[in-house]
Amino acid sequence: MLKAGVVGGTGYTGIELLRLLVMHPQVELACVTSRSEAGKAVADLFPNLRGHTDIMFTEPAADTLGACDIVFFATPNGTAMTMVPELLDKGARVIDLAADFRLNKESDWEQWYGVKHACAELLDEAVYGLPEINRDALPDARLVANPGCYPTAVSLGLLPLIENDLVDDQHLVADAKSGVSGAGRGANVATLLCEASENFKPYAVDGHRHLPEIRQTLHAVAGHEVGLTFVPHLLPMIRGIEASLYAVLKNRDTDLHALYSERYASEAFVDVLPAGTMPETRTVRGNNMCRISVFQPLAGDTVVVSSVIDNLVKGAAGQAVQNMNIMFGLSEQAGLDHTALLP
Amino acid sequence: MLKAGVVGGTGYTGIELLRLLVMHPQVELACVTSRSEAGKAVADLFPNLRGHTDIMFTEPAADTLGACDIVFFATPNGTAMTMVPELLDKGARVIDLAADFRLNKESDWEQWYGVKHACAELLDEAVYGLPEINRDALPDARLVANPGCYPTAVSLGLLPLIENDLVDDQHLVADAKSGVSGAGRGANVATLLCEASENFKPYAVDGHRHLPEIRQTLHAVAGHEVGLTFVPHLLPMIRGIEASLYAVLKNRDTDLHALYSERYASEAFVDVLPAGTMPETRTVRGNNMCRISVFQPLAGDTVVVSSVIDNLVKGAAGQAVQNMNIMFGLSEQAGLDHTALLP
Amino acid sequence: MLKAGVVGGTGYTGIELLRLLVMHPQVELACVTSRSEAGKAVADLFPNLRGHTDIMFTEPAADTLGACDIVFFATPNGTAMTMVPELLDKGARVIDLAADFRLNKESDWEQWYGVKHACAELLDEAVYGLPEINRDALPDARLVANPGCYPTAVSLGLLPLIENDLVDDQHLVADAKSGVSGAGRGANVATLLCEASENFKPYAVDGHRHLPEIRQTLHAVAGHEVGLTFVPHLLPMIRGIEASLYAVLKNRDTDLHALYSERYASEAFVDVLPAGTMPETRTVRGNNMCRISVFQPLAGDTVVVSSVIDNLVKGAAGQAVQNMNIMFGLSEQAGLDHTALLP
Amino acid sequence: MLKAGVVGGTGYTGIELLRLLVMHPQVELACVTSRSEAGKAVADLFPNLRGHTDIMFTEPAADTLGACDIVFFATPNGTAMTMVPELLDKGARVIDLAADFRLNKESDWEQWYGVKHACAELLDEAVYGLPEINRDALPDARLVANPGCYPTAVSLGLLPLIENDLVDDQHLVADAKSGVSGAGRGANVATLLCEASENFKPYAVDGHRHLPEIRQTLHAVAGHEVGLTFVPHLLPMIRGIEASLYAVLKNRDTDLHALYSERYASEAFVDVLPAGTMPETRTVRGNNMCRISVFQPLAGDTVVVSSVIDNLVKGAAGQAVQNMNIMFGLSEQAGLDHTALLP
Repeated sequence: MLKAGVVGGTGYTGIELLRLLVMHPQVELACVTSRSEAGKAVADLFPNLRGHTDIMFTEPAADTLGACDIVFFATPNGTAMTMVPELLDKGARVIDLAADFRLNKESDWEQWYGVKHACAELLDEAVYGLPEINRDALPDARLVANPGCYPTAVSLGLLPLIENDLVDDQHLVADAKSGVSGAGRGANVATLLCEASENFKPYAVDGHRHLPEIRQTLHAVAGHEVGLTFVPHLLPMIRGIEASLYAVLKNRDTDLHALYSERYASEAFVDVLPAGTMPETRTVRGNNMCRISVFQPLAGDTVVVSSVIDNLVKGAAGQAVQNMNIMFGLSEQAGLDHTALLP
Repeated sequence: MLKAGVVGGTGYTGIELLRLLVMHPQVELACVTSRSEAGKAVADLFPNLRGHTDIMFTEPAADTLGACDIVFFATPNGTAMTMVPELLDKGARVIDLAADFRLNKESDWEQWYGVKHACAELLDEAVYGLPEINRDALPDARLVANPGCYPTAVSLGLLPLIENDLVDDQHLVADAKSGVSGAGRGANVATLLCEASENFKPYAVDGHRHLPEIRQTLHAVAGHEVGLTFVPHLLPMIRGIEASLYAVLKNRDTDLHALYSERYASEAFVDVLPAGTMPETRTVRGNNMCRISVFQPLAGDTVVVSSVIDNLVKGAAGQAVQNMNIMFGLSEQAGLDHTALLP
Repeated sequence: MLKAGVVGGTGYTGIELLRLLVMHPQVELACVTSRSEAGKAVADLFPNLRGHTDIMFTEPAADTLGACDIVFFATPNGTAMTMVPELLDKGARVIDLAADFRLNKESDWEQWYGVKHACAELLDEAVYGLPEINRDALPDARLVANPGCYPTAVSLGLLPLIENDLVDDQHLVADAKSGVSGAGRGANVATLLCEASENFKPYAVDGHRHLPEIRQTLHAVAGHEVGLTFVPHLLPMIRGIEASLYAVLKNRDTDLHALYSERYASEAFVDVLPAGTMPETRTVRGNNMCRISVFQPLAGDTVVVSSVIDNLVKGAAGQAVQNMNIMFGLSEQAGLDHTALLP
Repeated sequence: MLKAGVVGGTGYTGIELLRLLVMHPQVELACVTSRSEAGKAVADLFPNLRGHTDIMFTEPAADTLGACDIVFFATPNGTAMTMVPELLDKGARVIDLAADFRLNKESDWEQWYGVKHACAELLDEAVYGLPEINRDALPDARLVANPGCYPTAVSLGLLPLIENDLVDDQHLVADAKSGVSGAGRGANVATLLCEASENFKPYAVDGHRHLPEIRQTLHAVAGHEVGLTFVPHLLPMIRGIEASLYAVLKNRDTDLHALYSERYASEAFVDVLPAGTMPETRTVRGNNMCRISVFQPLAGDTVVVSSVIDNLVKGAAGQAVQNMNIMFGLSEQAGLDHTALLP
């Protein structure tokens, strides 16, 4: 049994991680920290866990966390970087579900996150935990940067096109939509039911923090900078991301469905749908799958890819567990084989 | 491994049953029938099952079904009764998730369901599958009538009061609210998103079919007829039932919370919440639990009980699996230990 | 044209009041105050008002407000009472949409609201603005206490029964459900979309502040104290209240539908539905109507009344405008004749 | 008073049209037809209209309709074309809210709608009722083709770019999202609350019928064929369309916000938002406005336009009333000056 610690267990990413970990057959939940809820039973705050765990929230303590095999940070951006070096020193391995280690360049990170990085020397060591491109680096990784939710959906959707140099990669468009849970569990007028329900809007058109993350991933694959317009939108629902991706094909004659099917044939958590089928976010609700369809409307020169994930699972906690499984040599699907809840 | 057959796998009860059965460690899904979808892969219709089962819908056939250890009917009312006698003869055991065997008296059944019963001789043999009152009868049962969703929530909420003769049982009130999935997957204007969303209404005030079912259960417990006003309401959401139950106490001094806690102490799927805590439907979403709170507002003479279930799980498919587990001597919780999906 | 001032225009009650006032043909919106938004255009915060008003939020100032014919308080409880005496002195008339003047007895008010009242001497003068019982007192009123949302739905639903002494009024039950806008526009975890959507729960079972308000109204009508159990629930939608009301009849033979129809025949904003018809909250969305149905299930001894309103309109801003219309001798329906938005 | 007839008053477009017409100060609703509901009071089916009209549904009759000044068809595609010639002969003027007269070329129409056109000779005469480009043709029009919902949002969003030849018009992308009411009030599994709520998906990627309509409009403006990829998506909400539009700029230095502001300065129903502001669908709920923002993310070479409408108002019934107002010389805003319902 792996001993796992969770830092920051009261946000939606943290709750989802706890849900997955208490059902994981090879994990023992050793500690869950929360400064604000220390001393309270986790199941008192999240009654869906009643009967599944008796664990209490505790104050974060380096000794306790350092004694874990794996520590997950489900904290706001900027928290993990203040604790990770000490935990690594104590021998724990770390997966950060926030953004502290997602960008390779210190200058990029500081530009987009607006503060100085507390341990920039680790940016280079951190493995970007998108297993579909970095699986081989995970078994030896001490520190994994779990990808953002939008970057997971967008990158998996674009990879086969970029890897094969099939499109004009200077004018990529990603029109992405996310359920409200992506905005977190903080008290906020904009995400009240009365504000976000029966409503739809774009936001952060002029630069969302996930934009440099996606560009970095695609840059690495393409071997050069790519041009990407990324517009996120807020969906009036709890879970799910859909990204509709648009690019101009260099050549209209590639069998795109075959290309995608081959690319992801051995991936447990990427499902290329049968030709002509549309993905729906609900088919991955509570589940770690990314489902993808690729279309070439009216046989024209534009390719349309639709990629769906559950932002809290493949876009956060589920991918973190997938990364943990690979890091420790477990079955990649361990603890992640639940079917999506439908309807 | 138990061989299980499902008749009618395309409604919401059927889909949920399939979701639970494909994850059940001791069940092999032998056949899923649907006249309308025969020949189609189940996972093509319900993509949440992609990767979990390759089974195809087939036409219902008595031989195939009769060779199963257990056959579930997830069909409209009136279907199971036409096939059950033959299947029992072939040695299969049956759980009917519809209403064909829920009422003991043929005349009651025919009054409320409006057609002649096709095998009324089985009404007496059928065990009403509410394990919390009929557990002992299940191991030997050939035929189990799985309770309705509202009756499960209401009966579990009222049982301790009725068993202990604590209230005026001639003026019980059950104000119940259900998510729209309770109305089924049939194409129907009234359950379109644009009709049922952002809307709330009572319905069937003058006699819902679940009323005689609840009365029969409470009658059996009380030893005499009870008076119950039952008003169902339609909630603008997918899953979940909450029943608020009202009764006038004969005596104000009973410790109601202790009473409920003791009554359900050994029940795996009834959770009496800590005193002062309110149940919420989302804490049982996708889960087989019934969570209950009991209140005596302002220490007056009226008791208020709130009982929540997922109408598709403890109110249908989950309770059916629970019944199967008991019938075949498996752990009662086998295949039912998932945590609720929250948020 | 009446000159109207609105104190506290940034909550949901305030926004709705602004929506109604900018469309009212006999009202000129003279000032809208908000300490937090002073200096900002109202339409910048609420773009649905773009093109309908150019007014800016200002700091509340007694001189400006005192020069209005009518001042509405759409503030949190406890604010109006600190400003009302001065405004009355300056000759303005006041409608408080909060609770400061709803209870007649100072001791009751202080018990339920937990602070000392700042101008208890006005409690007696204040007219409780439920026009269907207090219309005659409104033309001369200087100060009107606009009723709470639940009390409006519950009181209108029970009035004909209580006025005619038809039921056991010591064991009344009001099972009420409200859309989330009733909880206000404050940032609050419990009313985030991810917490309140796809969820249903009772709350405040042991004593909601609207309980003494309803009891006071019914007491006045009955001539003695009544016994009422009131349980509010939170609906996963924006607008609407439904109250299901239960009472034991003294006599089963009254024609309840005729009784209700007669009682409300001349009321512009109470609509008794045709016999056998259920009310739905969406039929009053954005509209000042209260729609009511009355049932006697299976001709038994229990009466069931269902009453629906839009909590922000007849339950708040619309009723305030109705009160204003009566106070100033305008047509009671002026500015309130919009049809509900359906779907 | 204009005498108005409505053919097909039971779908969502028809209900919305009735809501607007009963509040219109210069319109008398002369008849509302429905084969299925003839003889029933309109307000019995749509109780939001109780108290606003006593009109009954009648069978469609050419004499009655022909005696109207204006007849609206709120029928499925293919119905209006069978009745329009006779009504025009009788002197009525017609606005078709369906698609029968939206495409100029008979061959295009028959290709996309799959049946033979019943009066193709009228295609040329019919005025495409997007007032923002065809206002001058409306006063003399006998027959108006009311635009589709998506085409309204997309065309208004792209017009200033195309009119000024500012972008590569061979690779336009329109990523559009619609509330479920756009799919109509027919009983359909795909639009049940349990299917469409808490879910998001693209559909009709390989050719939606609104694609040729949009292309025709842009072609007329550009003077040549344009290339457009149009992907509609289904939003889990009732009302609202948002279209995110992407194009590559020929020149990065145009002041796009000024351009849009000037283009629509005199339009009553197009609102260009302040620079930096995002449109939200709820700000037009129940309202005839189209709100638009234009962005040039990170000052790059791609322009992003976001355009929102209420699909049932500016996308259907409201635009039809706007067209009627212009046709008959009324104020363009008559009966359309309601503020949007928010929240």
